[in-house]
Amino acid sequence: MGLDMTRAFNFSAGPAAIPTEVLERAQKELLNWNGYGCSVMELGHRTPDFQTILDKTEDDLRKLLNIPKNYKVLFMHGSASHQFAMVPMNFLAPGETANYLEMDHWSKMCIKEASRFGDMHIQQGIRTNSDGLLELVPENEWSLDEKGKYLHFTSNETIVGVQFQDDPQSFSGKLVSDMCSDILSRPIDIEKYALIYAGAQKNIGPSGMTVVIVREDLFESFQTERVPSLFQYPHVSSKGSMPNTPPSFGIYFAGLVFEWLLEQGGIEEMYQRNLKKAHMLYDYVDQSNFYHSPVAKGSRSFMNVAIQMKDRKHEERFLHEARENHLIALKGHKTFGGLRASIYNAMSIEGVETLIRFMDQFEQRLK
Amino acid sequence: MGLDMTRAFNFSAGPAAIPTEVLERAQKELLNWNGYGCSVMELGHRTPDFQTILDKTEDDLRKLLNIPKNYKVLFMHGSASHQFAMVPMNFLAPGETANYLEMDHWSKMCIKEASRFGDMHIQQGIRTNSDGLLELVPENEWSLDEKGKYLHFTSNETIVGVQFQDDPQSFSGKLVSDMCSDILSRPIDIEKYALIYAGAQKNIGPSGMTVVIVREDLFESFQTERVPSLFQYPHVSSKGSMPNTPPSFGIYFAGLVFEWLLEQGGIEEMYQRNLKKAHMLYDYVDQSNFYHSPVAKGSRSFMNVAIQMKDRKHEERFLHEARENHLIALKGHKTFGGLRASIYNAMSIEGVETLIRFMDQFEQRLK
Repeated sequence: MGLDMTRAFNFSAGPAAIPTEVLERAQKELLNWNGYGCSVMELGHRTPDFQTILDKTEDDLRKLLNIPKNYKVLFMHGSASHQFAMVPMNFLAPGETANYLEMDHWSKMCIKEASRFGDMHIQQGIRTNSDGLLELVPENEWSLDEKGKYLHFTSNETIVGVQFQDDPQSFSGKLVSDMCSDILSRPIDIEKYALIYAGAQKNIGPSGMTVVIVREDLFESFQTERVPSLFQYPHVSSKGSMPNTPPSFGIYFAGLVFEWLLEQGGIEEMYQRNLKKAHMLYDYVDQSNFYHSPVAKGSRSFMNVAIQMKDRKHEERFLHEARENHLIALKGHKTFGGLRASIYNAMSIEGVETLIRFMDQFEQRLK
Repeated sequence: MGLDMTRAFNFSAGPAAIPTEVLERAQKELLNWNGYGCSVMELGHRTPDFQTILDKTEDDLRKLLNIPKNYKVLFMHGSASHQFAMVPMNFLAPGETANYLEMDHWSKMCIKEASRFGDMHIQQGIRTNSDGLLELVPENEWSLDEKGKYLHFTSNETIVGVQFQDDPQSFSGKLVSDMCSDILSRPIDIEKYALIYAGAQKNIGPSGMTVVIVREDLFESFQTERVPSLFQYPHVSSKGSMPNTPPSFGIYFAGLVFEWLLEQGGIEEMYQRNLKKAHMLYDYVDQSNFYHSPVAKGSRSFMNVAIQMKDRKHEERFLHEARENHLIALKGHKTFGGLRASIYNAMSIEGVETLIRFMDQFEQRLK
């Protein structure tokens, strides 16, 4: 792309695209926030000014996701991988069991980490069907441990592009969900969940921060023995997400993204746009003899669209030419290969149209 | 300050001032890094481009601090408070003891957290002398447990402005130091230490990231039982600081600060400037009948200068008028009161001169 100054359409799975308007505002304020003479990242976190930023950020997230009052919202250091340990450390006393749905890469990483802190009852959540396509295992085929303290599932598997289409219904206990790659992309019925977490770097803001939404009445049952204070949800909550210096610039950035989402019309509007983008792309791929989707209908992610070329030898050239056309980060994850278009909230309909046009022209050039 | 667009002189203890040149560069690149069409915060951490940023950031830090090859440099999520747990979780097997020097607020917080993971042998490191001034307890009066696995100390107590003037000499075992508020301000003889950590938000970059420098041969002795993977130094090191999505924008920012430090002439040059700034301020305060230092000579911090007015009723007016004069964040910590000027690397000599001039004029106005 050389030194072209325009913004590319960025299909990165994460850290992912941030709305250009949000970056422009942050850019404008970077040396002098609100006439204060310094950047937000240079502002003490105990100042009333930063507290105002934090409060508004939380309020806007509550509005966007319609979070009930009996749920606490925490802005925590680190990424979802920290939560992989934190969830079992808080929920499980020694010898207790939890249910984990095993999907692909991320849920496997999560289970590996959680198994260090409790007993795992594992149910496969994904499989390859007779057509060689990935699909969700239907819920009526699941076998769960009803005595397990919770059921953990990854709502959207970023790498292979498989996504739950509905909340799980069959487990009578607590639901815990890693929603890293689809939070804020669709309405969520928060009350069905005990705890939801999401690393920031897909639909929220820069990496290094994780949002946790947790039902407050669970706090009294959480473990503390050999759990670092900053891993104890009740402790972090009691200090209003600031038991220590928080990732303040990340919180500010999340606040700008939340404002942008509200200006766009909120989550229902984003959901409609996201469905539209995904349908455009899957419809194009499905009618093609050149590209195909490795995921069965009914299991497909509307955030991460995995795409394969029927002849994989063209992949490198595709990625190179896409980049020359300002379409970046379309390479699939190293463990899965192929192409992948991550079309989170910040990806415009225009971006998806541009991608489809490029895919079509690329196919024509090879004929 | 209204909507004045100039940069204030920011004396915040942390998150603290960042060099204006660094912010200007980040601002310029915020929507389009290196002609790539996106921001660094939108760049996948597994791309060769981000790896280049990470490698150069580490290389520059190694140059600045002259870090020997047998030490690993880790860029970790979170703040120093995470290290308060991480250090004992890695170093101490059940029933083992470590020495902790108790200073003020931060070392007390550190000891409180560490005591959840091991036995603490505590030595007071700070006391009030017969003149009512804070001073370091001389090392020849310390009583340490020589069998303790390490001696932990906070090299500079940000809140009260007390700083070790030399590395401790009397403990024959491993030294571990929280250098949050004086890393990169002075030369360090790294080889005297087993582990050094520092949250970014004072002399490194935005909050949410912590730099750890650790001697590699210790890894084999570190504990793993019930230690979250992301708290295990050997694991984070084996993955090159990226076992998960790192705080990528924070790493990039740290890299810009490190480049700036090298351009300024490196750590020896910054040390001379820092000493000069501190001497200017302490000399002014010492000759004043209006202000005084609550810290004895020989124990004073050259990063955080605590200042008290002999008549404390003027504090609010001082802070208000200082702010009107573009001198911000001079309020002391709530637990200690008074005024505090944090004069980290990013504070210029001009900034300190301006502060002294203001202090003098303020005193004159009250006469």
